[in-house]
Amino acid sequence: MTAAVRPIREFELLNRIYAGNRELAERFPGRVRVPPGDDMAAIAADGATVLAAVDSVVEGRHFRAGTPMALVGRKAVTRNLSDIAAMAARPLASLAAVVLPAGMSADSAESLFEAVRSTAARFGCPLVGGDIAVHAAGNAPLVCTVTVLATVDHAAGRVVTRSGAQPGDRVYVTGLLGATMTEDGGGHHLEFEPRLEAAAALLGALGSRLHAMIDISDGLGRDASHLAEGSNVRVRIDAATLPCRAGADWRAAMRDGEDYELCFAASGPVPESAAGVRVSAVGAVLPAGGGPLVEVVAADGVAIDASSLGWEHAAAGGISETQP
Amino acid sequence: MTAAVRPIREFELLNRIYAGNRELAERFPGRVRVPPGDDMAAIAADGATVLAAVDSVVEGRHFRAGTPMALVGRKAVTRNLSDIAAMAARPLASLAAVVLPAGMSADSAESLFEAVRSTAARFGCPLVGGDIAVHAAGNAPLVCTVTVLATVDHAAGRVVTRSGAQPGDRVYVTGLLGATMTEDGGGHHLEFEPRLEAAAALLGALGSRLHAMIDISDGLGRDASHLAEGSNVRVRIDAATLPCRAGADWRAAMRDGEDYELCFAASGPVPESAAGVRVSAVGAVLPAGGGPLVEVVAADGVAIDASSLGWEHAAAGGISETQP
Repeated sequence: MTAAVRPIREFELLNRIYAGNRELAERFPGRVRVPPGDDMAAIAADGATVLAAVDSVVEGRHFRAGTPMALVGRKAVTRNLSDIAAMAARPLASLAAVVLPAGMSADSAESLFEAVRSTAARFGCPLVGGDIAVHAAGNAPLVCTVTVLATVDHAAGRVVTRSGAQPGDRVYVTGLLGATMTEDGGGHHLEFEPRLEAAAALLGALGSRLHAMIDISDGLGRDASHLAEGSNVRVRIDAATLPCRAGADWRAAMRDGEDYELCFAASGPVPESAAGVRVSAVGAVLPAGGGPLVEVVAADGVAIDASSLGWEHAAAGGISETQP
Repeated sequence: MTAAVRPIREFELLNRIYAGNRELAERFPGRVRVPPGDDMAAIAADGATVLAAVDSVVEGRHFRAGTPMALVGRKAVTRNLSDIAAMAARPLASLAAVVLPAGMSADSAESLFEAVRSTAARFGCPLVGGDIAVHAAGNAPLVCTVTVLATVDHAAGRVVTRSGAQPGDRVYVTGLLGATMTEDGGGHHLEFEPRLEAAAALLGALGSRLHAMIDISDGLGRDASHLAEGSNVRVRIDAATLPCRAGADWRAAMRDGEDYELCFAASGPVPESAAGVRVSAVGAVLPAGGGPLVEVVAADGVAIDASSLGWEHAAAGGISETQP
């Protein structure tokens, strides 16, 4: 009898980090202000609060072979900037670690680094450090890992976590959702604008009424479930209100991932746009219990469990897409 | 006629980052206190100074296939902690991004993460964030990238860069050098203790007389040349004084790399040990000009250019080892 090899699941593994939160608090009292499990961690550093997050883009996983290095470097930075936006924080600095295929030309490598450097600078998150390694194997995939640091918005004096949504809040998203990758592997997921300005504008306009926020990287279904779980609430989404990108229906809007838009919960009036970006009311926050973390109500009035509509990036052997 | 493909060289590429230093200063005035090019960058964050560095360990490059995940995770953290030691800074927090082979078991992945988490916590640098991806290709190499954050030593109120060495200083190293990898791929490079306590003790004992410091990751020849270049001086090393690990002669001590010991320049008396770690005087700082950045004087009195004795990690197609 052979024991089945347990597949790797990203959330299980990340839960190992989160499980260390109690130990963090005990061994390093006061050091960690927002613990692992949010879009960024926040750390107390000599009186300041510094936020930090890290994300890799991997050839064959986050971009196809043949994608121009300028777009690869851009995405490696912008998807991290999206995490800064999700906290309504301000970019401070970035670092990049790249592992290059052995056969890569210096020109391609420089193009990658230049894209990382210029994208980071453009969004106010200058590249201050890096590491370069070359794979021993010639065909091994390129990996570009970017770390971003951020500070707290000075006027607001706080960051926005996933954990503050309250029953009675409305749920909103920025921009358009779904159809984020074209058939040739290009499209929105390589070209999106991180919502830093929109997030700052929302925090400025809503202040303490901006209760919780997350960026949509894994699909609205899954990311809204993270917000619901973090806030100990449920979320109900009205399919008809979802702002769909051309080529996407409401299922694609819930599921596709890599939108890098913001999903937030707020009370009271919310503007229809923020820093020029459309803001759409798409649902409501409900008390916990009595149903799935996220449900989407279709045109026929039937509610579908949407908590797992989205991507779990690290499921072994391929991106696992869960459909209802 | 075919144009030769220009190989990737780590230092050339990193120089692209460093070339951005002037732009950093102009576009982000006051934000970057120690710019890219040192062991860590230092950034101004709301009145505090935060240091940051990133480094990857790559299967087939920094560890062999089959190395226990507990040692891989440990090394991914400790080589970053060595950068903190090199600045005489204090660990604050760490983040880890791993890219796993598609066929890896969840148990192995958990072992890796647990090693990262426990090593980071042990050295006062708690893991506060992470990212996990799985390669699309089954045989693609494991990559584990760790970012470390640090703060300035409170008593000293400063960090120690590569740039302060002065003619007349003596040059010192901690511990033993060379023979850092056994034939089976194990040994010191997987098991070293980062010199955090020794660095803090040296800064406490020497204060402003501790002029410049670097950690020895690429080989003493190459790393001393970084210190010499950063300080605009030359370094002369006396081969007979090099503290060699069992199995290493002075050439190995100059060349092997992955010692993760400290090399520093200081004036005045220096203790023979720091936090229980041996400290050896191995050379002198000379004025710039008139010779190589680093020379080593052998027993026969002949001076050899040792500036490139060491490893350039990212030379295309394999680690390039330059011997005299």
